[in-house]
Amino acid sequence: MAVNLTEPESLLPVKGVRLASVTAGIKKNQTDDLVLIELAKNSQCAAVFTQNKFCAAPVTLAKKHLQTKTPEFLLVNSGNANAGTGKQGMLDALQSCELVAALTNCDVNEVLPFSTGVIGENLPVDKIAAALPDLYDQLLEDNWVKAGRGIMTTDTKLKGISRQIQLQGKTVTVTGLSKGAGMIQPNMATMLSYIATDAAINKNLLQQCLNSAVQLSFNSITVDSDTSTNDACVLMSTGQADNEIITDHSSDEYQKILNVITEVCLYLAQAIIRDAEGATKFVTLQVNTAGSIDDARKVAYTVAHSPLVKTALFASDPNWGRILAAVGRAGVEFDIDNIQIYLGDVCIVSAGGRDAAYTEEQGQKVMNQQEITIRIELNAGDSSACIWTSDLSYDYVKINSEYRS
Amino acid sequence: MAVNLTEPESLLPVKGVRLASVTAGIKKNQTDDLVLIELAKNSQCAAVFTQNKFCAAPVTLAKKHLQTKTPEFLLVNSGNANAGTGKQGMLDALQSCELVAALTNCDVNEVLPFSTGVIGENLPVDKIAAALPDLYDQLLEDNWVKAGRGIMTTDTKLKGISRQIQLQGKTVTVTGLSKGAGMIQPNMATMLSYIATDAAINKNLLQQCLNSAVQLSFNSITVDSDTSTNDACVLMSTGQADNEIITDHSSDEYQKILNVITEVCLYLAQAIIRDAEGATKFVTLQVNTAGSIDDARKVAYTVAHSPLVKTALFASDPNWGRILAAVGRAGVEFDIDNIQIYLGDVCIVSAGGRDAAYTEEQGQKVMNQQEITIRIELNAGDSSACIWTSDLSYDYVKINSEYRS
Repeated sequence: MAVNLTEPESLLPVKGVRLASVTAGIKKNQTDDLVLIELAKNSQCAAVFTQNKFCAAPVTLAKKHLQTKTPEFLLVNSGNANAGTGKQGMLDALQSCELVAALTNCDVNEVLPFSTGVIGENLPVDKIAAALPDLYDQLLEDNWVKAGRGIMTTDTKLKGISRQIQLQGKTVTVTGLSKGAGMIQPNMATMLSYIATDAAINKNLLQQCLNSAVQLSFNSITVDSDTSTNDACVLMSTGQADNEIITDHSSDEYQKILNVITEVCLYLAQAIIRDAEGATKFVTLQVNTAGSIDDARKVAYTVAHSPLVKTALFASDPNWGRILAAVGRAGVEFDIDNIQIYLGDVCIVSAGGRDAAYTEEQGQKVMNQQEITIRIELNAGDSSACIWTSDLSYDYVKINSEYRS
Repeated sequence: MAVNLTEPESLLPVKGVRLASVTAGIKKNQTDDLVLIELAKNSQCAAVFTQNKFCAAPVTLAKKHLQTKTPEFLLVNSGNANAGTGKQGMLDALQSCELVAALTNCDVNEVLPFSTGVIGENLPVDKIAAALPDLYDQLLEDNWVKAGRGIMTTDTKLKGISRQIQLQGKTVTVTGLSKGAGMIQPNMATMLSYIATDAAINKNLLQQCLNSAVQLSFNSITVDSDTSTNDACVLMSTGQADNEIITDHSSDEYQKILNVITEVCLYLAQAIIRDAEGATKFVTLQVNTAGSIDDARKVAYTVAHSPLVKTALFASDPNWGRILAAVGRAGVEFDIDNIQIYLGDVCIVSAGGRDAAYTEEQGQKVMNQQEITIRIELNAGDSSACIWTSDLSYDYVKINSEYRS
């Protein structure tokens, strides 16, 4: 059902990163649900997390551990979010880290825990404990595809990408994974994403690079406006590409690595939308000439969240009046006589109403496509924003009304 | 499909108000779609309108006419919203008023136009012109039920109510109608509502009374967060009940009329939610002990708009984790360890997670009901808000993806 999303056949290993994935029995469907990622010594790690106040226990603990140590292991389970689990949830997350630390002789603070799945059920730590020795034994550099499958929940397709660039004559590799299909919204979502590079870059720049890339990618997508309790995006660098360490924010090398990380994040974020629950359309909302970036994002998200716009997209119905109504209620200042709304290249709204040259046939032609761009020119300034979303289909309702049964 | 909504068998006439409804052929299904309401001389009229920037031509014109004259006629068509129609839309709305004025020998400013239906198609003024003489001939005081049907679009049930109270020994009648089923959200929706009373009350107090009643009723409901371009709520008083005119905001008489108007508005607003597109549940969101009313409303609307909460309600699934996640992302300050969330009388969340005494059976019992109250205690202040919403069902998607075909 995913919209123009092809699974990668293979992903490039990143020197200094080993991964493993096993079936621990946390998910009901007996597929892989426990993933371990090992980082070589001297690696760096940057991360961004959900802004939901009810963030899950592993999120709280991962943030804490990141502040004290550079991680050696990331432990990820799917099938259970360990969220809304109160004090027991914190104990369970900590115990999972302790199990990894005991097995690998590292410090408990050097383990970051991540969980994704159903909210409000206690984490089955016994199943994790039983699966860990086998998981540890299977760590391999060339295991990204298997790890990508291990973090999936309602995803229908593996989401992963690799890129290589040259830095100072050295080949640098970036490989990333993401998961997520529902509860996806601005400020991180039910999504997890792990991106690694062997480029050498200092810790502050690594975090800055991640923040910048996330803003234009994972923080610019929405399926259903629901921010999850567990979202996390981690960027790791092992420094084993032998490039001279990047420490200067204004250097060409930083710009190159920023560009490739942004490209990888954008691919992974858009892959989540392409595989959104019940999605039949991949929709780009481009808002231009706004008074501010905030205004542009407000208009884009108001249209993207409108159930009426989303059902019209599902129906391939050029019901542009619903787009106009959503723009009009976004709470943003503009002159309705000056704005234009485009469906693809077709101008649908100008001079306060339907564009004089618009015909239903033109609109229908765009709406029949699987990938649709809605462009809104506010003519109120020079700011822009671009976000991506999906439609609202029967299958969205089906998936989300049957998820727990 | 409406949730516990019974059509009124009859509605009480209001002295000084006559109504008529005919089939003009604007709607495709050949049911009544043109309504005329006549107000006796010396009546007063208060109104609130959509806050959508793309408000429809009739909204713009009705506001303008209300500023200059007290209306004698309200002309309402269903089947076409005359919205997103630019300059032609304004000409069409004006021409409709002129037709009524010519037929009835009143001033064009004494006619208020209202439209509801599909956005972006030109109003068929020729059909209105052809139907008007017959419509005018059929004006009757005892015609509220027929008029209520004439303003319906995707509504499955007529929404109307009558109440009587005593004011200074005189019997005062209030009768109201509403329509609307989708594109319903705070700040007025795709809804129209006409409420009339024969009580004598001065114009300023009438507007004040309407504003107050609307805030607690029509501005406290949401189906899908989409504010329509055409929302209007009109409160008319004819003064023919022979009570001494109410001019004092602090009088017992004002309080009595305010109470009954609020009761009528609340019934009519809740009736819209009960008949919401695809609704199988009537959901009350009560947020208490918030830091401010704004905070309380923010939390209530965030939960009410969450597609994941709405699909869980449709599935009768006590998936309380979705409620907790929505509360957590509302952007409101509170201590997660101090809040409680109740499903009916069952405490589902306390101390930062699932309540220790909660069992799935308890939650399931509440979720199986057609009317469900979700109560959230933020323990961050002493403000409250109460709003009403519906669930998100297959039929919502069906209705909104097939509406124009």
